Amino acid sequence: MKVEKLLHMAGGAGDSSYAANSKIQEKAILKITPILDKAVSEVHKTLLPEKMVVADLGCSSGLNTFLVLTQVMKIIAKQCRLLELQPPEMQFFLNDLPGNDFNNIFQSLDYFEESVKTEKGAICVPHFVAGLPGSFYKRLFPSQSVHFFHSSYSLMWISQVPEGLESKGEYVSPNKGNIYIGKTSPPLVVKLYQDQFNIDFSLFLKLRFKELVPSGQMVLAFLGRKKKNIYNGELSSLWGLVSESLHSMVLEGIVEEEKLDSFNLPFYAPSMEEAKAVINAQGLFDIIHMQIFESNWDPYDDSDDDFVIDNVQSGANFAMCIRSVLEPIIASHFGASIVDELFTRFAMNVARHLVKEKTKLPVLILCLKKKQ
Amino acid sequence: MKVEKLLHMAGGAGDSSYAANSKIQEKAILKITPILDKAVSEVHKTLLPEKMVVADLGCSSGLNTFLVLTQVMKIIAKQCRLLELQPPEMQFFLNDLPGNDFNNIFQSLDYFEESVKTEKGAICVPHFVAGLPGSFYKRLFPSQSVHFFHSSYSLMWISQVPEGLESKGEYVSPNKGNIYIGKTSPPLVVKLYQDQFNIDFSLFLKLRFKELVPSGQMVLAFLGRKKKNIYNGELSSLWGLVSESLHSMVLEGIVEEEKLDSFNLPFYAPSMEEAKAVINAQGLFDIIHMQIFESNWDPYDDSDDDFVIDNVQSGANFAMCIRSVLEPIIASHFGASIVDELFTRFAMNVARHLVKEKTKLPVLILCLKKKQ
Repeated sequence: MKVEKLLHMAGGAGDSSYAANSKIQEKAILKITPILDKAVSEVHKTLLPEKMVVADLGCSSGLNTFLVLTQVMKIIAKQCRLLELQPPEMQFFLNDLPGNDFNNIFQSLDYFEESVKTEKGAICVPHFVAGLPGSFYKRLFPSQSVHFFHSSYSLMWISQVPEGLESKGEYVSPNKGNIYIGKTSPPLVVKLYQDQFNIDFSLFLKLRFKELVPSGQMVLAFLGRKKKNIYNGELSSLWGLVSESLHSMVLEGIVEEEKLDSFNLPFYAPSMEEAKAVINAQGLFDIIHMQIFESNWDPYDDSDDDFVIDNVQSGANFAMCIRSVLEPIIASHFGASIVDELFTRFAMNVARHLVKEKTKLPVLILCLKKKQ
Repeated sequence: MKVEKLLHMAGGAGDSSYAANSKIQEKAILKITPILDKAVSEVHKTLLPEKMVVADLGCSSGLNTFLVLTQVMKIIAKQCRLLELQPPEMQFFLNDLPGNDFNNIFQSLDYFEESVKTEKGAICVPHFVAGLPGSFYKRLFPSQSVHFFHSSYSLMWISQVPEGLESKGEYVSPNKGNIYIGKTSPPLVVKLYQDQFNIDFSLFLKLRFKELVPSGQMVLAFLGRKKKNIYNGELSSLWGLVSESLHSMVLEGIVEEEKLDSFNLPFYAPSMEEAKAVINAQGLFDIIHMQIFESNWDPYDDSDDDFVIDNVQSGANFAMCIRSVLEPIIASHFGASIVDELFTRFAMNVARHLVKEKTKLPVLILCLKKKQ
């Protein structure tokens, strides 16, 4: 599987598009605002650049894409008013894989510009927005040319399904029946996933270190794990429900068993300790801030209760979110014809699960500063 | 008419897409290679930047888009081999209006990277490619952040249909029956078009002056006029044939007369003297080089003969080129349903015209250097 070709959110702006179903991601971005505020202000104050380059890695295509830009401009505008400074010229780069719907982003730029103009307390920061297609597991920028990186809900996507997980001819995947680390996955599968995450996250840090100016910072937010036991990890539960849905379709002959056995997600949800270990092993960044934020599965459920009010509605809401993320990868592997049915079953499985346990999505938030 | 929304080449990669019908533009790019070579080499040699920013304004979506990048990288690679220098890290910006098919460009990046690798004499210049949506009649970059601009077949598109040309209620356009300066256009129409070009081209020069680093250069190639008499201008002949085709459809009731009367192209083909006058009036750039290159209408006709061999085939070939450029703007104004019929008639009109006169497309080529 060529992850770079397949891994992108569902394009366009229709009912099942990512653009229309990215409320979970929006919440995370709003949650990190204070951290963003501190980091962006500090970079600006330290360097006082005439031109400030900011990149959003894994920007996807939707309203969140512009949310980050707006936040960053507000921070700079406020700081420059306080310090009585001329604001820098901001150059924003919106990065995602080449399959992302950049046309949709670019055609929404007019609305973004309008919203910037009508924003309370006018954000009069001169700015320029470019799109940057490419994997963030490769170099994206010239050396020392970026002041600040932001990335939300992206780094849990690893660069490839770990080698050794895909069935090939006689070789049967050790992860048969699961699409991620599941209760029946042998320890080898866990190790393969962990190794791939370590390789990818290390590489990510090395690449960004080269691209950041001295004293540059980055704020990273991505799905992780709070539970110690990896087999019970929150994301294992989630992907387990997708697995189950697929499995029931295998039993009814709608999906070939072989297809399911050869499907694994290029995804890993690390614990904060695992993420920290990689950062410290590299020694390129100081950890300025770290925290875990938990988000309800149903993006419209803002309560802190440990039960859901309407499990069927919550199941349906969450299924729409997950569909907008998984649809391209599922359609490419299993065929587009199974998508509707799969997410109908998944919604029911989620509804059933939420009655037993109101699992949450743990989001790891890290603010890193380039070491001198 | 909102030019920024409508003016873009036909997207995708199908038979009538711009990507499949951009041979005329390709020829111009190949023609300017020696001028590009001199300009890019000089900028590099003068500034020896560690990071070199190059922007292509009006890149459209097709193979030509990457042709310019390849040429520039070859020039830099060659020069660095000669001078025994480490090549700079190149950052390319592909600019066009937001309606351009950027998704198509980004999804072709893989092929571009492959072609770069297999190029004779290996072009091992580190490079990064971004897309930049926006009108080049606005600021696109932070101040003094670009080393070199290229723009082919774009600057004859002005920012808007000159005010006073569109029919509004009781007011009837003085250019009734024409879609550009035609034989029956009164002098007022000529003046309105010339004034708009002067305003737009002046603005373009001012904006790029701000964005270029000191000693930065630009190579501009755009459609112009060789014939002194503006009413007989080569582009007047061309758009006259589109007018005629539309007019015949009015007579048959396929197109409403009102629709034709309210349609004017946001286009102006200046003479070299006119372009020079604007540059000198601004006083921001030295003209390093200027020339006029002529291209046969039929992109597959490479002969210098003053007659065409197969006028019907040439008519069809040229109609495909013009369709890929005009389709979005025509479909938006007249409706998509007339497009096939219009270009069938246009192909016949071109075929008929080519028997009488083998008109050519004059391309003005200018190399400008930012004054100190």
